[in-house]
Amino acid sequence: MRGENSVVKDPALAPEGHRKIEWAAAHSPVLAAVRERYLKDGTFDGLGVGVALPVEAKTAYLAAVLAEAGARVAVAAPLPSVVQDDVAAALAERGVAVFATSEGAPEDADRWMELALEAATAGGEAVLIDDRAGLTRIAHTTRRGLLPRLRGASEETTSGVVRLRAMEREGVLELPAIAANDARCKYLFDNRYGTGQSTLAALMQSTNLMLGGKRVVVLGYGWCGKGIARYAAGLGARVTVCEVDPVRGLEAYADGFDVLPALRAAEVGEVFVTATGNRRVLGEEHFARMRDGALLANAGGVDVEIDVGWLRSAAARVREARRHVEEFVMPDGRRLRLVGGGMVVNLTAGDGHPVEIMDLTFAIQALCAYRLAREHAAMRPGVHLLPREIDDEVARLKLGAVGMGVDALTEEQRRFLAGWRE
Amino acid sequence: MRGENSVVKDPALAPEGHRKIEWAAAHSPVLAAVRERYLKDGTFDGLGVGVALPVEAKTAYLAAVLAEAGARVAVAAPLPSVVQDDVAAALAERGVAVFATSEGAPEDADRWMELALEAATAGGEAVLIDDRAGLTRIAHTTRRGLLPRLRGASEETTSGVVRLRAMEREGVLELPAIAANDARCKYLFDNRYGTGQSTLAALMQSTNLMLGGKRVVVLGYGWCGKGIARYAAGLGARVTVCEVDPVRGLEAYADGFDVLPALRAAEVGEVFVTATGNRRVLGEEHFARMRDGALLANAGGVDVEIDVGWLRSAAARVREARRHVEEFVMPDGRRLRLVGGGMVVNLTAGDGHPVEIMDLTFAIQALCAYRLAREHAAMRPGVHLLPREIDDEVARLKLGAVGMGVDALTEEQRRFLAGWRE
Amino acid sequence: MRGENSVVKDPALAPEGHRKIEWAAAHSPVLAAVRERYLKDGTFDGLGVGVALPVEAKTAYLAAVLAEAGARVAVAAPLPSVVQDDVAAALAERGVAVFATSEGAPEDADRWMELALEAATAGGEAVLIDDRAGLTRIAHTTRRGLLPRLRGASEETTSGVVRLRAMEREGVLELPAIAANDARCKYLFDNRYGTGQSTLAALMQSTNLMLGGKRVVVLGYGWCGKGIARYAAGLGARVTVCEVDPVRGLEAYADGFDVLPALRAAEVGEVFVTATGNRRVLGEEHFARMRDGALLANAGGVDVEIDVGWLRSAAARVREARRHVEEFVMPDGRRLRLVGGGMVVNLTAGDGHPVEIMDLTFAIQALCAYRLAREHAAMRPGVHLLPREIDDEVARLKLGAVGMGVDALTEEQRRFLAGWRE
Amino acid sequence: MRGENSVVKDPALAPEGHRKIEWAAAHSPVLAAVRERYLKDGTFDGLGVGVALPVEAKTAYLAAVLAEAGARVAVAAPLPSVVQDDVAAALAERGVAVFATSEGAPEDADRWMELALEAATAGGEAVLIDDRAGLTRIAHTTRRGLLPRLRGASEETTSGVVRLRAMEREGVLELPAIAANDARCKYLFDNRYGTGQSTLAALMQSTNLMLGGKRVVVLGYGWCGKGIARYAAGLGARVTVCEVDPVRGLEAYADGFDVLPALRAAEVGEVFVTATGNRRVLGEEHFARMRDGALLANAGGVDVEIDVGWLRSAAARVREARRHVEEFVMPDGRRLRLVGGGMVVNLTAGDGHPVEIMDLTFAIQALCAYRLAREHAAMRPGVHLLPREIDDEVARLKLGAVGMGVDALTEEQRRFLAGWRE
Repeated sequence: MRGENSVVKDPALAPEGHRKIEWAAAHSPVLAAVRERYLKDGTFDGLGVGVALPVEAKTAYLAAVLAEAGARVAVAAPLPSVVQDDVAAALAERGVAVFATSEGAPEDADRWMELALEAATAGGEAVLIDDRAGLTRIAHTTRRGLLPRLRGASEETTSGVVRLRAMEREGVLELPAIAANDARCKYLFDNRYGTGQSTLAALMQSTNLMLGGKRVVVLGYGWCGKGIARYAAGLGARVTVCEVDPVRGLEAYADGFDVLPALRAAEVGEVFVTATGNRRVLGEEHFARMRDGALLANAGGVDVEIDVGWLRSAAARVREARRHVEEFVMPDGRRLRLVGGGMVVNLTAGDGHPVEIMDLTFAIQALCAYRLAREHAAMRPGVHLLPREIDDEVARLKLGAVGMGVDALTEEQRRFLAGWRE
Repeated sequence: MRGENSVVKDPALAPEGHRKIEWAAAHSPVLAAVRERYLKDGTFDGLGVGVALPVEAKTAYLAAVLAEAGARVAVAAPLPSVVQDDVAAALAERGVAVFATSEGAPEDADRWMELALEAATAGGEAVLIDDRAGLTRIAHTTRRGLLPRLRGASEETTSGVVRLRAMEREGVLELPAIAANDARCKYLFDNRYGTGQSTLAALMQSTNLMLGGKRVVVLGYGWCGKGIARYAAGLGARVTVCEVDPVRGLEAYADGFDVLPALRAAEVGEVFVTATGNRRVLGEEHFARMRDGALLANAGGVDVEIDVGWLRSAAARVREARRHVEEFVMPDGRRLRLVGGGMVVNLTAGDGHPVEIMDLTFAIQALCAYRLAREHAAMRPGVHLLPREIDDEVARLKLGAVGMGVDALTEEQRRFLAGWRE
Repeated sequence: MRGENSVVKDPALAPEGHRKIEWAAAHSPVLAAVRERYLKDGTFDGLGVGVALPVEAKTAYLAAVLAEAGARVAVAAPLPSVVQDDVAAALAERGVAVFATSEGAPEDADRWMELALEAATAGGEAVLIDDRAGLTRIAHTTRRGLLPRLRGASEETTSGVVRLRAMEREGVLELPAIAANDARCKYLFDNRYGTGQSTLAALMQSTNLMLGGKRVVVLGYGWCGKGIARYAAGLGARVTVCEVDPVRGLEAYADGFDVLPALRAAEVGEVFVTATGNRRVLGEEHFARMRDGALLANAGGVDVEIDVGWLRSAAARVREARRHVEEFVMPDGRRLRLVGGGMVVNLTAGDGHPVEIMDLTFAIQALCAYRLAREHAAMRPGVHLLPREIDDEVARLKLGAVGMGVDALTEEQRRFLAGWRE
Repeated sequence: MRGENSVVKDPALAPEGHRKIEWAAAHSPVLAAVRERYLKDGTFDGLGVGVALPVEAKTAYLAAVLAEAGARVAVAAPLPSVVQDDVAAALAERGVAVFATSEGAPEDADRWMELALEAATAGGEAVLIDDRAGLTRIAHTTRRGLLPRLRGASEETTSGVVRLRAMEREGVLELPAIAANDARCKYLFDNRYGTGQSTLAALMQSTNLMLGGKRVVVLGYGWCGKGIARYAAGLGARVTVCEVDPVRGLEAYADGFDVLPALRAAEVGEVFVTATGNRRVLGEEHFARMRDGALLANAGGVDVEIDVGWLRSAAARVREARRHVEEFVMPDGRRLRLVGGGMVVNLTAGDGHPVEIMDLTFAIQALCAYRLAREHAAMRPGVHLLPREIDDEVARLKLGAVGMGVDALTEEQRRFLAGWRE
């Protein structure tokens, strides 16, 4: 059994993991429909699939669906902090090669991704489903020998797409990569509603604090930031937005939020949530201005948004104030409280995105992998978008699953849109 | 040490309990101010205080504050399902008599309340801080002998006030009881925002499901229901309200919600949350109409809103689908999923109300107990309201703690309000 | 024809007035149902009804319904600024005695109310439907001789009820007066949603300015203020609330609004809306702190909330900047712009409350008048509440009209609420 | 004086028109800043500018700013229904050639646009600021002789851009045309917030009906539809969305709205607002299913979304029920009520977009015209986008005007975004 070489914490945890995966399966009608309509056609028979994703129920269900479709699936966690050990164990038991244990060190992740790349390509060619371009980076650096076996990669995160585009600009990207993140069914829902709900749920659950009335500062008003700001306001918070893009800033203003430079926001905020995909968005100069008791959390795809290193070195004292909440006592007595260690908070201090969101996202991912598997030969190396029809079909499947639906243009309307003479 | 006779699961759990209590203390500026201004004046020296409340960090902090103020405090859990054992252990270690273990049976609760009544009155007179009138009921039935030692009770819940008024109507209430629940600082915040946020947080955390787009049916549009409906809408849900009071129903309609009789709502809902304080709000006839996969939870103060007994007896199969989620497979194959066992979901599947809400509520409770302790002699048996000044002061303390404030009427304005000639 | 003695601007305007009244009638299913079920029983045959209300389509429809039911109706406008002359003409043409022209001076209003009192009582006894206790005040001062003919008054406004209670406290109220304003179907809808929507609609229409992003200061967080704040936020405004009641202030805070003393709010606001029912809520000291371009409007029932007299005397220049908008240029160059003259803005610069809201309110008013007409003999002088059943029926009629409905308590539930033993 | 050849209703109306233009000027800080920084550099000296836009205060202010900058400006109304005669008169008085009177027939518009094209090019070259590509269409059909004098066109509307792209696809577009509509500062604010607020304000003002609780059907969930739906929900409406794009439909679902095919929505709606930019979105088959009393309005850029012709021919009776509201009595007795004649409702039954929105939009338009004037030689015929820097600057100017601001990326952050190696 392939799962046997897996690196997991404890195979005995599998039963609880299976139960979690079943829950995800029960709430994933779209991926189920994709499986029925596409994945069963033999495309994946014997093909490798390397997956770098947080290891929890929903990703596990994607891996399981691909494995059922005939693929040799290898999964690596991009960070130990995003591994649920019971799910990892269950996945290994289902014959997936798993390299993921919460007890690892952050630097183990590269090794796991190397192992996953090797496992996925051990029997022949493979496609990748990637997170922050981790597997792709390794295939272009320490495991270049495996590159010829890779048909392409599908990228899950905004940060990963930024990196892939940087690689493309530098002329070093040797694979076709689909920016699955840029599928409308992905970023409109996953980044916005998924991150929005799960980030706030993680904050509420970790702190047991009230959001109503709180001054919540959202750094970054991209899709993630928009979702967080909207739901925070929906829960009664008073929201301040920080941005570097003036049009997005103006959008936040028209949405009813205060829009302030981060240094000024630092003085008024009670809760700070970063969602920029950039580094050191909150650093020494911001911490210096914050009030006693300020809460900090990162909801972005990279774990360098909050300068935790500085906090740790500058604090007079650090203690765990609550599960998932570290308290840094500054030399001047102010206490800053970090939720989820500065890593993506809905995974490290929560259960990740809601199942239904991941159902959409992973339906897209499965179709990206399917497309790469079948059409890689015709795709140039570089970043590709998913064809619109596929996006539309995923949306249509979902609307159907909730009993709703859209119209089609009439022929008369189609002609009207194409015409320009009165 | 008085805590020695306590009934708790495991004293070794105390350190984690202390940490939780400290977190509550750190976010309770109002109760801290009440302690400084009132409780330290000797009123509680040697006085007993019997407390029936869920045993978690915030109630524990109230008990601790009263104990510090000199009271002999005895705490009983009104149900085993609302006991956090680590907090119970920490409280016992702080010298409070605690009768609360999560391993008890529901029927143990009456016994615990009897023990708490005895402990509170062992050294003399006592006041009660009560939940659903539990201690008061026992003092009027199986422990009538202790009645003469009781200066009065302060009641925390809507359901409890309903009972106290029923007792008053029947002419059997022999104590002065303050309807602390009816303090504006209580019901406007605790019932609405507290129940609202914590119920939805518990649902999201227990199910990892998305609220956006879901059809959420809220049964009862009192303060609790209003809070749940508002926040559910704030998180993108489509809300349907069921009511028996037509004016409240009309209010829900004007708030943008569908208002339907429960039997019709049963057909459209995906999530059902009861918040009526009444019994069998969801029963056989509703279950029969629900869709496969419907989620059920109770946010009301009584645990008979959902007819769990019928579900259990009628189901072909019952299993735990997820922590805190039981799945009932009906004979026709539909699966109904119950979150939190039908008991108040934010306690049984969550961490209870947000700390800041309980800070308000327990500031009120402390002042009610204080008032009963000092003025009981002048208060007739029956249900009393808290004087408005105290309500106002609690609100003023809270606004000050968040850097906000209100105005006072000018003399000219006061005259204007008092006048009627142009 | 009784309308012949009317004081109206121009009878030739009647056709447009009739059209407006028909529009109101077409959207008033509740008042229509009340007419069918109650008013046709002869109670009003030959009885006088004195009405003091803004003269626009919806009040006119109420007057018309009462006239149709057999009453001798006399209507006076409480202010010239709240008179629509076409509606006044149409009403006169329908046989109602009307004393209302937009060309009058404010001081004419007392005279109109005297005339209306006389006309209503000319043929015998009468009941009053009153606005800010105007008719009642006159009946207790300059027309005391008519008091014996008055069966009672029903009061429409919050400010009026405040005055009636002041009169009751002073022991000078000689009528039974029903606080129709305190009917739940009145204040929950009329004060909140009616004032909320129509105030913002009037502001948008008068200024053509955007609300999204604007800092809107709402002075007073009673039902009117709550409605204004909620809808302003719903349109994207950033809302600051000023209050004198700390609990209401705290409510505004938990609703996500800033809560500031009025002097601090004066510095940050771009739009100020008063809704306190009190006088000089915005005066010299606030004007001094406001920014150039600040907009001022009053949504409260009294027209002394904004100290317009001071503005007028202190301004270097005053001009009409737009229809319904006066611009006061301060000596320091700042321009303050007053919408609707400081009188209730949704009437002076808009079309008043939405029809459906007035349908509810006037269904209540009609039932209050009906009750006073029939049961006055048994009612002591003083302020009375409308019995709850009537409130409930109005709500039930409205819910039915929009295809919604509520449940009734089961017998089992009724018993449960009445019991206190487990 | 050039305005002398103008076609306007009555020059005597100019004073009121000037007052309206001044109001717009007072609330247009961004266009004022653009004028100071760019337009004064002589670029427009003697250059023609042909403008096709609704003639009301804000467009007039744009025309006046361009005229002040030295341009020979000629304005034509694209429809008589979008002309405010006082503003037209004032504009003519300021030396702009104006071809616009509310008393014209719809078919006059083409003639006006021809006249404006001629006037703008009479003295040499010109640029166009266009609405639904009207001037551009005429320059490519009945006035092809003027084409060589045109440096380019800037297009204001979504529908116009659709047409320009159709022309480009057919290979017949001979001008460089800037899709000003696709500037982020345009569509994010104008289409969404501008259309959103002004459409609902027009509906409230025209009907005096309440939105809270109403079932509002929004057809089209593009930027316009999103704004309408959001604000309708913000005012308490229950919103149903109809779409042809499944991803947008899914977005509406996640936003908490019902998403239904238009035929099903026709049965449940009380208010219907079209915002698709397409034709016959509501036609015979929808009208047949609507309830008595349904309100219909069009908020889209084309006036064929609602099949008014069919309504008119099929109705048993048509009357004006209220200003701006026509009532069509169907043979079966149902009454359908059309607001604003099926033309864009915020203009025909309201005052157009809020001033601040048009300030942004016209700052963009002025910069587009400026760019065409200077760089046309380097621009190929076809549809162009506005460079991002200009978009950003307009947003930055606006944020500055409201006292807010954004950050800039640090050098470290810029490097981070450009890098892909860990």
